Amino acid sequence: MEVYLDNNATTMVDPKVYEAMKPFFCDMYGNPNSLHKFGAGTHPKMVEALNYLYEGINAADEDDIIITANATESNNWVLKGVWIDLILNGNKNHIITTEVEHPTITATCKFLEEQGVSVTYLGVNDEGTIDAASVRDAIREDTALVSVMWANNETGKLFPIKEIGQICKENNVLFHSDATQAIGKVVVDVQDTNMDFISFSAHKFHGPKGVGGLFIKAGVELTRLLHGGEQMGGRRAGTVDVASMIGMGLAMKLATTPDAIAYENDHVKRLRDKLEAAVLELPETIVIGGKDNRTPNTTLISIRGVEGESMLWDLNQQAIGASTGSACASEDLEANPVMNAFGSDSELAHTGVRFSLSRFNTDEEIDFAIETIVNAVNRLRTISSSYAYTPKNHASEL
Amino acid sequence: MEVYLDNNATTMVDPKVYEAMKPFFCDMYGNPNSLHKFGAGTHPKMVEALNYLYEGINAADEDDIIITANATESNNWVLKGVWIDLILNGNKNHIITTEVEHPTITATCKFLEEQGVSVTYLGVNDEGTIDAASVRDAIREDTALVSVMWANNETGKLFPIKEIGQICKENNVLFHSDATQAIGKVVVDVQDTNMDFISFSAHKFHGPKGVGGLFIKAGVELTRLLHGGEQMGGRRAGTVDVASMIGMGLAMKLATTPDAIAYENDHVKRLRDKLEAAVLELPETIVIGGKDNRTPNTTLISIRGVEGESMLWDLNQQAIGASTGSACASEDLEANPVMNAFGSDSELAHTGVRFSLSRFNTDEEIDFAIETIVNAVNRLRTISSSYAYTPKNHASEL
Repeated sequence: MEVYLDNNATTMVDPKVYEAMKPFFCDMYGNPNSLHKFGAGTHPKMVEALNYLYEGINAADEDDIIITANATESNNWVLKGVWIDLILNGNKNHIITTEVEHPTITATCKFLEEQGVSVTYLGVNDEGTIDAASVRDAIREDTALVSVMWANNETGKLFPIKEIGQICKENNVLFHSDATQAIGKVVVDVQDTNMDFISFSAHKFHGPKGVGGLFIKAGVELTRLLHGGEQMGGRRAGTVDVASMIGMGLAMKLATTPDAIAYENDHVKRLRDKLEAAVLELPETIVIGGKDNRTPNTTLISIRGVEGESMLWDLNQQAIGASTGSACASEDLEANPVMNAFGSDSELAHTGVRFSLSRFNTDEEIDFAIETIVNAVNRLRTISSSYAYTPKNHASEL
Repeated sequence: MEVYLDNNATTMVDPKVYEAMKPFFCDMYGNPNSLHKFGAGTHPKMVEALNYLYEGINAADEDDIIITANATESNNWVLKGVWIDLILNGNKNHIITTEVEHPTITATCKFLEEQGVSVTYLGVNDEGTIDAASVRDAIREDTALVSVMWANNETGKLFPIKEIGQICKENNVLFHSDATQAIGKVVVDVQDTNMDFISFSAHKFHGPKGVGGLFIKAGVELTRLLHGGEQMGGRRAGTVDVASMIGMGLAMKLATTPDAIAYENDHVKRLRDKLEAAVLELPETIVIGGKDNRTPNTTLISIRGVEGESMLWDLNQQAIGASTGSACASEDLEANPVMNAFGSDSELAHTGVRFSLSRFNTDEEIDFAIETIVNAVNRLRTISSSYAYTPKNHASEL
């Protein structure tokens, strides 16, 4: 049995999504900007896909949703567009974000700091989330943008987006959220949250890789990141990847209907909770960031005495895929900075394993995963020097 | 019969390429940065694809080829990266390009001019190409970059890349070429041409849309356009679109073997020449830019008295796809600025039709296209006010 529990890194393309994409490789392959049937013939399905995207995040008709390569492009676009528009060519010089954003945000902010921009990185509170009040406190006269993720990729923790949106509106500051880990797991409503921009990637909700989107509220200006042709209403140049756009549209629809969200918060959450409860029965295990207010599919568990990478190796031997944290950072074995921010001590920061489920997981898979995880922990603790010598080697002390 | 003659706008995905991509949607869907088999299992095919890319453009092992969303991203990256590195954070302030680049270059240069950068736009000579000497003459002390396309998308005209590369090397100026329209049509050799950067898009050589590349010579620095995770050796963040990368690799191989280039310059060129010769038998028709020194698949023909859009309409009725020029600009019906630059008069600038062939076209298709084109020209000239009243209404006067 293969068990894929790394859906926050990427997901399987839903076979229905793949079916919808198929005609656009070798049959309906025209450039949608062309006037002939090979090109214009793609328009009805592209319009349908766009409609699914608008419905999926409750965008208004007059808002824009721009097809990008991925949330990385969308995030870079917002931050660098705001830098060019309001900082280089304006009188602002400050951006507010958090310590626990995805690297697309934090690395871009580091770059902007090198260019002279002032950036405030808000820390998480004891509950593993951001205090909305800390955003209000950080806003300055020269604040151009607040960027706070909707849900954290490591822990699944949900941030107080609606309150922050209200604060940004009151202070006339642009508000962006990287909603990559939220779509398909919780309701993402851009109108209800006063959102100016949200970013997303199709491959996090069973769409294809290499395509994502940026929502831009009606009337909000943003210098292009990709100049060139007049595609996407002149906001993002480059031949539209028709197959991927159509795939993303259907993936959005399948992930965001009320039934889909309910299934995620019923079936998927039940499986996640079952897995988590079984691992927490082992001594000296904790859920990083705590259990409240999370996406239903994610758990980040610290298992004292077990190196995350060793654990992954054992799981991989049994064809179980999990992660020590963001795949974007997993090629290096540094302690996960997000885990540090979530307040785990320096040892714990090396012992986190993230299990992220999807609607394709089954009870049978989770039972097999539990058995394998328990065996792996027992084996690895037996050979662990740090676990043997820790003074906290008793469950009762937790 | 359907006849697709708009391959400079986009191409059909080669069925062999699509076959190679298929496993990476619903089966081998892992994130290549993940440590488990779902992710790492994609590496062998990704390495194979990268090798095909290196071989296809004769990159050296130590050079970089970065997977991007398309040539639009690659072009924006080079221009904006050089802007940030050498102009905002350096002492250069000048870029040299041409009047006939793709909009990704010209629109990005217009943006950079708004940011205070000085840009020289070289015009084409009587032969529809760029004089290498004009590049030498334009280079200044503060020139940061020369960007000249390898082959023009409208006319297929080839530019003196090797000579320009030599001039840039002698003057210690970075050299970039948008090779989007050259790959698979002529030999693109980055070492032979002293190239620092080239851009390309897979969908122009029978690969998928939504994926392209940027070649960066060993040792050349370039600030990232997409900050974030450490993908692509830390040069371009974002989860790699595995299926598309593998498709692009195979498409590159299939398009660039010596046999493939020979087929293009034998079979495809013969079909193009046959089509072109038949249209030129009609009175008052000319090849914009002239016939010499072109990619083998392209002809841009001006047909006096026939609006390009009317012609496309008639052809589309018979399921023949062609273009009035770059699809990136074809949604508006402005006169094509590139045709203006190529020296056609203001009437001719509205009468160009571009036929761009591929290895999938057949003699039968071209014969049908010729018959349809001739009928369309005769019909449209009968109802054309401009053609009836032109004083040059005789073939003998041409």
